[in-house]
Amino acid sequence: MTLTPLPRVMVEPLVRAALLEDLGRAGDLTTDAIVPADATATMVLATRQPGVIAGIDVATLAFELIDPRVDVAIIHPDGAAIPAGDVIATVRGPARALLTAERTALNLLCHLSGIATQTAAVVDAVRDHKAKIVCTRKTTPGLRALEKYAVRAGGGANHRFGLDDAVLIKDNHIAIAGDVRTAIERARTRAGHMVKIEVEVDTLEQLDIALAAGADAVLLDNMSVEQLSQAVAMVGGRAITEASGRVTAQAARAIAATGVDLISVGWITHSAPILDIGLDCR
Amino acid sequence: MTLTPLPRVMVEPLVRAALLEDLGRAGDLTTDAIVPADATATMVLATRQPGVIAGIDVATLAFELIDPRVDVAIIHPDGAAIPAGDVIATVRGPARALLTAERTALNLLCHLSGIATQTAAVVDAVRDHKAKIVCTRKTTPGLRALEKYAVRAGGGANHRFGLDDAVLIKDNHIAIAGDVRTAIERARTRAGHMVKIEVEVDTLEQLDIALAAGADAVLLDNMSVEQLSQAVAMVGGRAITEASGRVTAQAARAIAATGVDLISVGWITHSAPILDIGLDCR
Amino acid sequence: MTLTPLPRVMVEPLVRAALLEDLGRAGDLTTDAIVPADATATMVLATRQPGVIAGIDVATLAFELIDPRVDVAIIHPDGAAIPAGDVIATVRGPARALLTAERTALNLLCHLSGIATQTAAVVDAVRDHKAKIVCTRKTTPGLRALEKYAVRAGGGANHRFGLDDAVLIKDNHIAIAGDVRTAIERARTRAGHMVKIEVEVDTLEQLDIALAAGADAVLLDNMSVEQLSQAVAMVGGRAITEASGRVTAQAARAIAATGVDLISVGWITHSAPILDIGLDCR
Amino acid sequence: MTLTPLPRVMVEPLVRAALLEDLGRAGDLTTDAIVPADATATMVLATRQPGVIAGIDVATLAFELIDPRVDVAIIHPDGAAIPAGDVIATVRGPARALLTAERTALNLLCHLSGIATQTAAVVDAVRDHKAKIVCTRKTTPGLRALEKYAVRAGGGANHRFGLDDAVLIKDNHIAIAGDVRTAIERARTRAGHMVKIEVEVDTLEQLDIALAAGADAVLLDNMSVEQLSQAVAMVGGRAITEASGRVTAQAARAIAATGVDLISVGWITHSAPILDIGLDCR
Amino acid sequence: MTLTPLPRVMVEPLVRAALLEDLGRAGDLTTDAIVPADATATMVLATRQPGVIAGIDVATLAFELIDPRVDVAIIHPDGAAIPAGDVIATVRGPARALLTAERTALNLLCHLSGIATQTAAVVDAVRDHKAKIVCTRKTTPGLRALEKYAVRAGGGANHRFGLDDAVLIKDNHIAIAGDVRTAIERARTRAGHMVKIEVEVDTLEQLDIALAAGADAVLLDNMSVEQLSQAVAMVGGRAITEASGRVTAQAARAIAATGVDLISVGWITHSAPILDIGLDCR
Amino acid sequence: MTLTPLPRVMVEPLVRAALLEDLGRAGDLTTDAIVPADATATMVLATRQPGVIAGIDVATLAFELIDPRVDVAIIHPDGAAIPAGDVIATVRGPARALLTAERTALNLLCHLSGIATQTAAVVDAVRDHKAKIVCTRKTTPGLRALEKYAVRAGGGANHRFGLDDAVLIKDNHIAIAGDVRTAIERARTRAGHMVKIEVEVDTLEQLDIALAAGADAVLLDNMSVEQLSQAVAMVGGRAITEASGRVTAQAARAIAATGVDLISVGWITHSAPILDIGLDCR
Repeated sequence: MTLTPLPRVMVEPLVRAALLEDLGRAGDLTTDAIVPADATATMVLATRQPGVIAGIDVATLAFELIDPRVDVAIIHPDGAAIPAGDVIATVRGPARALLTAERTALNLLCHLSGIATQTAAVVDAVRDHKAKIVCTRKTTPGLRALEKYAVRAGGGANHRFGLDDAVLIKDNHIAIAGDVRTAIERARTRAGHMVKIEVEVDTLEQLDIALAAGADAVLLDNMSVEQLSQAVAMVGGRAITEASGRVTAQAARAIAATGVDLISVGWITHSAPILDIGLDCR
Repeated sequence: MTLTPLPRVMVEPLVRAALLEDLGRAGDLTTDAIVPADATATMVLATRQPGVIAGIDVATLAFELIDPRVDVAIIHPDGAAIPAGDVIATVRGPARALLTAERTALNLLCHLSGIATQTAAVVDAVRDHKAKIVCTRKTTPGLRALEKYAVRAGGGANHRFGLDDAVLIKDNHIAIAGDVRTAIERARTRAGHMVKIEVEVDTLEQLDIALAAGADAVLLDNMSVEQLSQAVAMVGGRAITEASGRVTAQAARAIAATGVDLISVGWITHSAPILDIGLDCR
Repeated sequence: MTLTPLPRVMVEPLVRAALLEDLGRAGDLTTDAIVPADATATMVLATRQPGVIAGIDVATLAFELIDPRVDVAIIHPDGAAIPAGDVIATVRGPARALLTAERTALNLLCHLSGIATQTAAVVDAVRDHKAKIVCTRKTTPGLRALEKYAVRAGGGANHRFGLDDAVLIKDNHIAIAGDVRTAIERARTRAGHMVKIEVEVDTLEQLDIALAAGADAVLLDNMSVEQLSQAVAMVGGRAITEASGRVTAQAARAIAATGVDLISVGWITHSAPILDIGLDCR
Repeated sequence: MTLTPLPRVMVEPLVRAALLEDLGRAGDLTTDAIVPADATATMVLATRQPGVIAGIDVATLAFELIDPRVDVAIIHPDGAAIPAGDVIATVRGPARALLTAERTALNLLCHLSGIATQTAAVVDAVRDHKAKIVCTRKTTPGLRALEKYAVRAGGGANHRFGLDDAVLIKDNHIAIAGDVRTAIERARTRAGHMVKIEVEVDTLEQLDIALAAGADAVLLDNMSVEQLSQAVAMVGGRAITEASGRVTAQAARAIAATGVDLISVGWITHSAPILDIGLDCR
Repeated sequence: MTLTPLPRVMVEPLVRAALLEDLGRAGDLTTDAIVPADATATMVLATRQPGVIAGIDVATLAFELIDPRVDVAIIHPDGAAIPAGDVIATVRGPARALLTAERTALNLLCHLSGIATQTAAVVDAVRDHKAKIVCTRKTTPGLRALEKYAVRAGGGANHRFGLDDAVLIKDNHIAIAGDVRTAIERARTRAGHMVKIEVEVDTLEQLDIALAAGADAVLLDNMSVEQLSQAVAMVGGRAITEASGRVTAQAARAIAATGVDLISVGWITHSAPILDIGLDCR
Repeated sequence: MTLTPLPRVMVEPLVRAALLEDLGRAGDLTTDAIVPADATATMVLATRQPGVIAGIDVATLAFELIDPRVDVAIIHPDGAAIPAGDVIATVRGPARALLTAERTALNLLCHLSGIATQTAAVVDAVRDHKAKIVCTRKTTPGLRALEKYAVRAGGGANHRFGLDDAVLIKDNHIAIAGDVRTAIERARTRAGHMVKIEVEVDTLEQLDIALAAGADAVLLDNMSVEQLSQAVAMVGGRAITEASGRVTAQAARAIAATGVDLISVGWITHSAPILDIGLDCR
């Protein structure tokens, strides 16, 4: 499956803001003092752990925005799974630019690659089943588009991107509406025709009502593997089935075996440790 | 030690951007369809794990920016260490506002509390020693001020905030300058009088040169506990000593016992899992 | 059906920008020179044509951002259909603020009410049929969220809000993919599970293929009423049917009679004349 | 008369914002899924109605900001009056970029060309007279500079651009000042020496006072053709004369024959339907 | 003459940016460490030199944006001429807020009051003549609206605010056009009817041509007092006369005596020293 | 000593904003009307006074952002001290671009060169002593990074850049803390290890306490030359000594002779007159 890079018009404002956050008002005191203006360098972005790469285009942009003379030759594009010690890209240009942009480029690349790597681990765990691994809206403020992209780089799929591109009826909505049926009917009446409706259900009784009310998808929250199997059987293809609830890579396999269509995993975006990548002299 | 909240003028732009990222162009489809405009609700922000709170003011702002009628009564302020199940704050107001702001508020609160919690664990590990735990510039782009604040909420201290508020001479700088002494001298000549100079040293030989050249602080990178003890002895109070290099909470104790002044830990900002906090009906 | 106002956090940046565009660098030369600072006034926003109101909250915000002492008492909220000469709201406060904010408030209110009014006319024409009137992405740059809201105020519904919240396969996509089936299959494989897929078809043959390939919705473009009837029959409820192609209010009735689910109309957003509303002394 | 394009520094922020409004957080789902990354295409921007072009540079920028490899060869520049079916420009480049930027480019181009076309119709109606057709401040929020430019492209002229570049005393100002003379005197005393003063008058009595008070221009509002003729005679060249009040193209000719210097027309900016232009495969 | 404050919507973005520029990423280290959160203080803004005040509203906003509990009681509003040692305003509230906002508030207040003070000195020098003192476009980038306001606070008037609100034909334009007459005619043909045309002339020959071509105003650049007298006589009221060219307060009196309408002075905006104002405990 | 230019990513937003402030909504009326689109010109930026240059890169960017075809050939880079009449750079390109960008380019260049020139005068006055001349936070809002850069261009050094990169304890802090020792201890406890602490002292008694409490630097405020000599002797190298208090170039020499390390001068940023530089045809 191909991975489409985000258009530069979408990521450039974020990379500019990240550089300015690090440069502050005085710029790179250390590099400006120590590194001659005409020094050039060739360095490599290399993994220190095995993992899946995401964000190399964004990191490249960080270098280029500091100095357009920097040349980044990408060896492993986003989505590549590589071992520890592999070179992702070679970075050549004015030494000052390399050192000044280094931390911003790495902060983006390591964070996004961390998400891609964790995603890939869960995706791999369910590789013998049809279930897709999807992320949630539990993302870092300001980075949602990039983090959702990193999930795709890791082989996962995206759930909705915000409050406005799909209906997801949760327990609190149901509590206020009074019951599952009322909630779905209100949503059906008011949502646009291109908007799908998913309902969180905690029990098989709720599931029955949700199906009868015509939900496009059902979120089977915190159910046991047995309950999930029953739920999948009960749905019988009438709706998309999604399992959720603190799913580890290990747990994912058993869940996938129940036949659910999707397993949503919040921690791949909100709690993924970085992938350790360094900018090294070679 | 008191914890000073960041001025609203600093955090409001970020919270506004986070809300807009979630609202998109159509707003909260689900809540607008299902929840009556005049419904009110009282909910609680409660921990699902023990941890240290950071970001409750920011979360409060998320609710208030959606609807100024929301009232957030804070029970445990930032910096509080609380058990699982405790109520951090009660949130009362229009039900729509509570549900629409929920995810943004939680994304901020859980992320920052995760950092505070991990920081507190490392701080606790070294509690019998003088060493302070400090964070690095390995932060999430756009969130540096808040993440550094979360470190303080966890009892840690902050290293420099950017490239522009202190000199930190790393191996790449030394390589380009030719040697440690030259690098320090160039920095000394050009840095302002309020700017301290720290030098990364990998060996005791480099340390000796750095001390002779008058470094204010030395970053003892990836040294063994034995090397650290020797280094601390060699420094003899002439410079601030900082140990670094993938320090776990367990390792921190032994490192602190060497007598170093500081232990810098990158992962408390770049790889801290969230603290699980929910917005629940009570 | 209730109409949910957009959260202030979404519209305030736009209203601020509109005010600044009119104030320029010197502010309101005329009012500042002529109107005493302590003069107060009571004026009314009144229609000069019958129509449907949209944007009164946004107009109110324009007045309040110039001076928070302005009080706007809304008589006819957004969505109200009123005759010519009716008072929408009474505006009281410092005379300078009323005159300085007037044009910005009216530009927003008249533009959005124009869209609501045209939408309502088409909605009314199809009132005996199930067809919904939906808008397109043919909106004024910068105003999409507000213009889509105005369509809702006029009783219409919204099609997708951008390139990113639904798949809509058009003739150019099909041409590049080679055929309708391939295009749908590629989209099915890559789109998220909450994303619906609509396909533009120009002939009944294409429609047949699209249905077989499992399109969620079909856009029947520029078909005659006879073709539309045949198409609706052929679909038989297997997909949502949408008619499009320069639909006037008059034409809409006959189209709706064919039984299509939706009629999309571009001109209600891109070519609606304003609803003439004035700020008058009373 | 030549038409000067707006500097890129003025229009680029608006085009970027328009693209981001359409791309949202996930980009172009349809094109990314269906169109291969290496597909190229050649398409044309062609009119589907006769009209006057405005905005081709802005549309070009939309394509280039999505992908700098897109090449737009302009055949008919802004200001050109062309028949239906004519090619305005040829657009070559990566097929994805063409399809992703299409709607944003067209929304700008069709909207601005619509204004230019309507302006040209009114300008043409008065071609045998000296009267200039001028636009007002009744523009779409955020687009004033571009819409005023489109009026110039259609052969019209611009009235003031905001509240801050000229004095225009309206009935509400006069009502608060007490009388026309007082209003003009206050403005004369306080306005800068480069600022002209125009006064709205509804009667010939008011006109007499305005002329005696030294108004630079008089806005003859909603007067009949007979009144306008009298007014022009009364002015006798002592001030610029401007007629206003819902002027259709047909009415403009008779108004122009009265000898007024200017006819201001609000609807050419606030209610012009788009000029239908498509991006077609050829 | 009354002085109208700029609307808050115009100045708030600038004050926010100024505060953020000073707060950086960590906020006020000194105050946060030393001043208890609950300490309150009463301080005064007091002059250390005689001068004219401008910017007290802007300074007030700086305090309020840091903490809305700060109360600023203004004693001398903008435009007041006061002796050294006088209290401009009393500032009461949380001590932290007072100290944190102090520098930003003072930087704005002292800079703008410096401009007002220098303007007032030149205005005073010509008080026996009709000549107005006007400022130029030689302002500090980002501050034009505020600096032009400060000139008004000092009793001066404003020349054009930018390239877009009046025509000012300078020597370089004339050189490219070929001659004065051609330049004026081109401007007359293309400028809007509310736009005045001023021409810079260096000799009486050029002046003669400019008057014949119908210039609204003439800029008599770097002429001697004798030349100015001749020029004023030659103009005979047919155009506004403006003298310019490094005019000191002393020189202004003799220039004003020639009968020119305006004397433009660049240095009151580009080179005015600040008015020394302090925030003191009382 | 070399002078490092600020990265383009830091200055471009400011230059764009400055251009837009001058272009307004209609652009350069005069140039667009008079100068043919295809006219080219070669002009020079030349001093009209002797001085030190700062801002030539920023001025170049102003021209390039209006039209990338403009070529600026720099003869005297930032930091150069040159006589009146010298050519700083040759500017070639479309005549319209040169005239449209002229004022923005000059406003930046003249302002920054004014600061550099005044700084250089004070630096020169103390050339026989070790004392460095440093600037303060008394800068123009929005321009701090550039103004601090201009001080460096003039041979000066920078004090802290904001409230967040160093601790500077002033009289108001001490008053609230109760005494100097308490203030320093609170700061020491809470400030980061890379943050230096400076204390303002008015008397030798306070100095004694500050030294005992371990201040890194002492600000000797408004002391006489005799007091300064005593203070330097008392310090004996234990802390950095800084003299401050309305220091003219003449006074600086005597102050420097006391042996202080630093002399801080506010007026070089807040009250420096511009360096007069013009854009001339040659």
